[in-house]
This record gives sequence, C-alpha cells and structure tokens, in this order.
Amino acid sequence: MIKQTLQLELGERSYPIHIGPGLLSLTALYEPAIRGRQVMVVSNNTVAPLYMDTVCEALQDYRLERLILPDGEQYKTLEVLNTIFDALLEKRFNRSCCLVALGGGVVGDMVGFAAACYQRGVDFIQIPTTLLAQVDSSVGGKTGVNHPLGKNMIGAFHQPRLVLADTDTLSTLDDRQLSAGIAEVIKYGLIEDREFFEWLEANITRLLERDTEALVYAIERSCRCKAEIVAADERESGKRALLNLGHTFGHAIETGMGYGNWLHGEAVAAGMAMAADLSARHGWIDNTDVSRIRALLKKAGLPTDPPGDISSDRFLELMAVDKKAMDDGLRLVLLDAIGAAKITADYDHGHLDETLSRKLPMTGS
Amino acid sequence: MIKQTLQLELGERSYPIHIGPGLLSLTALYEPAIRGRQVMVVSNNTVAPLYMDTVCEALQDYRLERLILPDGEQYKTLEVLNTIFDALLEKRFNRSCCLVALGGGVVGDMVGFAAACYQRGVDFIQIPTTLLAQVDSSVGGKTGVNHPLGKNMIGAFHQPRLVLADTDTLSTLDDRQLSAGIAEVIKYGLIEDREFFEWLEANITRLLERDTEALVYAIERSCRCKAEIVAADERESGKRALLNLGHTFGHAIETGMGYGNWLHGEAVAAGMAMAADLSARHGWIDNTDVSRIRALLKKAGLPTDPPGDISSDRFLELMAVDKKAMDDGLRLVLLDAIGAAKITADYDHGHLDETLSRKLPMTGS
Repeated sequence: MIKQTLQLELGERSYPIHIGPGLLSLTALYEPAIRGRQVMVVSNNTVAPLYMDTVCEALQDYRLERLILPDGEQYKTLEVLNTIFDALLEKRFNRSCCLVALGGGVVGDMVGFAAACYQRGVDFIQIPTTLLAQVDSSVGGKTGVNHPLGKNMIGAFHQPRLVLADTDTLSTLDDRQLSAGIAEVIKYGLIEDREFFEWLEANITRLLERDTEALVYAIERSCRCKAEIVAADERESGKRALLNLGHTFGHAIETGMGYGNWLHGEAVAAGMAMAADLSARHGWIDNTDVSRIRALLKKAGLPTDPPGDISSDRFLELMAVDKKAMDDGLRLVLLDAIGAAKITADYDHGHLDETLSRKLPMTGS
Repeated sequence: MIKQTLQLELGERSYPIHIGPGLLSLTALYEPAIRGRQVMVVSNNTVAPLYMDTVCEALQDYRLERLILPDGEQYKTLEVLNTIFDALLEKRFNRSCCLVALGGGVVGDMVGFAAACYQRGVDFIQIPTTLLAQVDSSVGGKTGVNHPLGKNMIGAFHQPRLVLADTDTLSTLDDRQLSAGIAEVIKYGLIEDREFFEWLEANITRLLERDTEALVYAIERSCRCKAEIVAADERESGKRALLNLGHTFGHAIETGMGYGNWLHGEAVAAGMAMAADLSARHGWIDNTDVSRIRALLKKAGLPTDPPGDISSDRFLELMAVDKKAMDDGLRLVLLDAIGAAKITADYDHGHLDETLSRKLPMTGS
C-alpha cells in the first residue's frame, strides 16, 4: 500500500488529504470526518454508475441518501444547486448532516457550495475522481457555481472535513481529462517547485500511462504545494493568487468559447503558455524557458495557444470581469523563473497586447 | 443629537452599530466602512422612493449603482437573489465593491447573502428601515433566503461592515410593522434582561407613539444584548440559539400559514407566548409570569395565540424541519424566569402536545 496522507493546517478547520489506490472502500477513513448520522452522497450520471455503490457500501452504517446530478460544466448553475437543497429538505436533513461530493471539479464545487449554504453551513467530504479535482479543486475550500457572465462568480470559502483522492478512479478517466489534470500538476512546478517541474519533464510518460506510483507521487507533491499556500492565505488576500497562474487567460478562453468546449485544464495550459510568453517579452524568463514549458505541455497532450477566434480586445474584455481585476488595474500571475511565479500589475500593456493578439513569439517554439 | 454607537466585537470582523435620528445623510458614518470605489445600493419598491435619494446623496463621491427589488417575504428567494448577481456582473463590480442593504429584514438578509457569495465574499452595509430589522436581523451576520420547504434554509454567516439604524425611517412604518418589531424587543427582555422587560411594561405606549428617545433607548438596549450574544457565539454553536426564543413555534406558524400572511414578529410573539405556556406547564415559571408576558404582547398589539387551523401534528411536522431540530431530539428555547431563557431538549412531550393543541392554559389569561 502506497497511501500518502497530508494534513491541511487551518486551526479548527484542519483536515486530512489521503492519496492512494483503493481508498473508496475504507470505512475507517470516513468515520472521523462524519459527526452526525445523515449522509448524502452526491455524484453525476457519469461517475455514479462507476463508484457510487462502493462509497455507499463503505458508509452503510449511516442514514444514507443518494443524489445524482447531470454531468457537465454547463450544469454548474444556481438552478442545479437548488436541486441539492430540494433533496436535503425533502429528506429532512438537519444541521449535523454531511454531504459527500463524488466526482470531478463541478460536483465538488457545487456540493461544497451547497454544504456552505445549507442551513448556513454543514459538513462535507470531497472524493475527487478526476486528476484535476484531486490536485486542485478538492483541496482548499473554494466552492461555487458559474453565472452566464462569469465563471465561479457565486460561491463561498468552505473547507471539507476530508479529501479522499483514490488513484484507482483515474483508470476510468479518458485521456483528454487526464491531460487536463496534468496541466494543474505542471502549474505547481512552475509556481514554486523547479525540481518537481524537472521530475515532470522526466516522468510525464509514466503519468500518461497511469503508473500508480507516479500518480501518487505527483498528486501528493501537488496537494502539498497547494495545502501550504492555502494554509498561508486561506481567503486569497495575497499569496494564494499565485495558484491562478494561467487562470486569468484561461478563464477568458473558457468564457469566450462557452463553458465546456475547452476543458478547464486545457484553457489553463494555454493560459500558462501565454503567461510564459508575456513574461519572456519582459525579459523576466528566457526564450528557452518558454520552449521548455511549451514542450512539456505539448508532451502532456495539452494546447499551448489560445483559440484563433478570440480577438485581443475581446480577450481584455473577458479578462477584466475576472475576480482578479482590481481597482488599481488587472493583476496577473507571471514568471520570474521556472519555479518562481509572482503576482503583478506592473507589466507592459503593449507586451500584453502582443501576447493576446498572438504576435509571433520571440522564440520559434 | 441622541445618537448612540455600539461596537460588535468580532476581531477583524468587528463593526459599529449607530442608532439615532438623521443618520442616513451623514457621509462620515459610511466612509470608514467602504474600502473600494464601487457601491451598489439595493432596496425594494416600497422603501426606495422614501430613502434611496438620501442615501445616494450621502454616497455621491463613489461609483454608485441602484437596484430595486420587489417588496415582500415571498420574494426572498434564490431567483430574486440571482437578479442581484446579474446587476453586479452587468455593472462589472469587482471584489472590492460594497453593497448597501436599504430596507427591512428581507432586503438585509438577501443583500447580505449576495455579498457573502458574490466572488466568494464582498463588503456590505446594513441600513435597516424597520424596527424588526434594526433590533434583530441587521445585527449579527445571519443572511439567507427562503426555500419552499423552509424559512432561511439557504444562507451564510457574513458580517456587515456597518449598521446604520436611523430612527427617522420608523416614521413611515405602519403600526402593524412597528408592533412586529416590538416583539423582538420584548424577546431580549425575556431572554436575559428582566429590568428591560419591566422598562417595556412601563414604556410600551411611548414606543407605540414613536417617541424618538424611547425608540433609541429600546433599540440600543436590544442591539447591545444581541451584540453580546453574537460576540460570544458567532456561528450559533451554543448560546446564540437563545435568540431563537419563540422562533421554532413562530417559524412553524409562518410556514404553515404561507410566508407573508403573518408578519415574522407576529409569529414570534405567538411563539413566545407558547414558549411561556410550555414553561409554565413544567412549573419553571409561574402562571402570573405567563399573564404578564401575554399582557405586554397584547398591549404592543401582538397576537398571543397561534392560528386555529394548524393541528398539533402539523405543528410538530413543521417544527421538525426547523434548523434547531437536532439528531438528539428537537431542542427548544424555554424560560426559567422572565429574563432567564434556556435551551433544552429535556421537556415533557405531553406538555408540548398540550401547548400545540391549545389546551386551556392553567392560567385564565
């Protein structure tokens, strides 16, 4: 057994993150996280047929209810959120109940937000079944839904009581989803862990082949990075914004293309390549760094350029509605090196326009 | 000027509560609470024609937007909440914006909840314009909306940056609304301030006549009581539940009658009379206490009995969906004396049934 366990340290809101194969069926992992008797397992119609029974069997000693939502980012809405409230109230769930989010980032974000709001806050458990959710959205307590005018615009900070990242669930993930998850893994290397970036350059094939040991290693290292940053800045007043590397560009791509056409991780990959391009135009990183970043993303099966049909002006418009748009100008996460990101509003607007309009980069990558 | 100022002490979430006449137009009171430039004043179609211009004039140096919601408890829904998000996103409000809730409890609860969720939390200011909101809902950070299956079932704890209780706004309140507010004022006396209860017995007529000095005194003393309880137990894990005196019965009345037929304060008044009746049936208070409580409520123009058409069984059903229903049995707030409430699940179910089925009370009040 190669299970790894991390603790996200947030005082009385601290919680464990377990990573490894075969975790879903281990009742003993759930028990410390569940304080009452009522448990509702919420999943979607893709994941539920695969893993719902295993989870429910592990939780059979509780008063258990199941709820299945439609699968897809287009269902991450207030309306679908309300169906969770309907179910909780119909089943007369009380304040000491616990919700279990079984699925990818959409299920995790929505169930987490439902838990944040139901009776002004109840417990919940994250069981992420995509690599993206395992290394990113299930850890750190960001929850929410989309609005037609912006992604994740309605939400709450609400920490889970437990995260179970069972690597066996990645066996049913399609290749495109796996690659999208690797985008966020690469992000941690770029932000603050050059050694991990280099490990990824050497081991990317093992991840794509779903080697369990490599997956556990990469997920653990990613979650450790995220847990440290969240522990230092839970509500994103400072350092936590580093985790948005590639995301301001990426959200603009997702919104501009309509949710669901690009996977989140794909948009973030293109966004990170754009952040690298913009950083290089300022001379903060070398062109060889840009080439290495683009090469690793490509090897992981990820896009490195935004879609051709978003104009520079439209890009700026989509970026300005982003949460990171502050009174004092749009701040971006850019790179001083591979393994050293920074948050800054002090960049050249001409260079930004060059990046957005996809002027040929200075490097020929 | 007889302005009173209290501070609700919650560490970095502390905020002032100003009480007095003529406060709406005092720009200097708002300024310390507003951190950015974007301000949206949200009101309803009853209150906006009366006070929106005064507030907007005081805030004219900000980037100001106005939003007017339909008036009434039946509009305290996720759908109407979403119109606030629509407006914020259309106007491109960012994370450092500030919302202003100008109106009664419905506006305050919804705008507060919108502020809690918009971009995972922005600032807001409470300007309560009903007595009920001034002494209760605007203070303490409980926000939310109703669900067809239960009142305030969806919400968040989110503290305002400032509460402005301008007693001049009570001049336009109709008599029934004023009485409904007095119900919550009487509640504070019953919970923990016998001396205040006795002051109310002596001064109820002055309140009904809207004597400014009496109003400022009663509001200040009520807010002080609430602020102390909230400071001790912000998220209602213990003592704060005392504030629910009369509310478990009251919510059942409101839900059973359909929101809006009984005012919240009227339902709470009948609920407090029921709590007193149930306490007397256990011998915890005297029949003369019950008579005094009923007499004060009646003098304030409030009901002291639930509507006749809710059966005992239906009452229990409506009460059990209440947030206070715990795994270990329904806990109620009952009285050990006028000025001494307690939270308990240790009551006789036969006595509860007598109270719910309106068996003749032991006293002939």
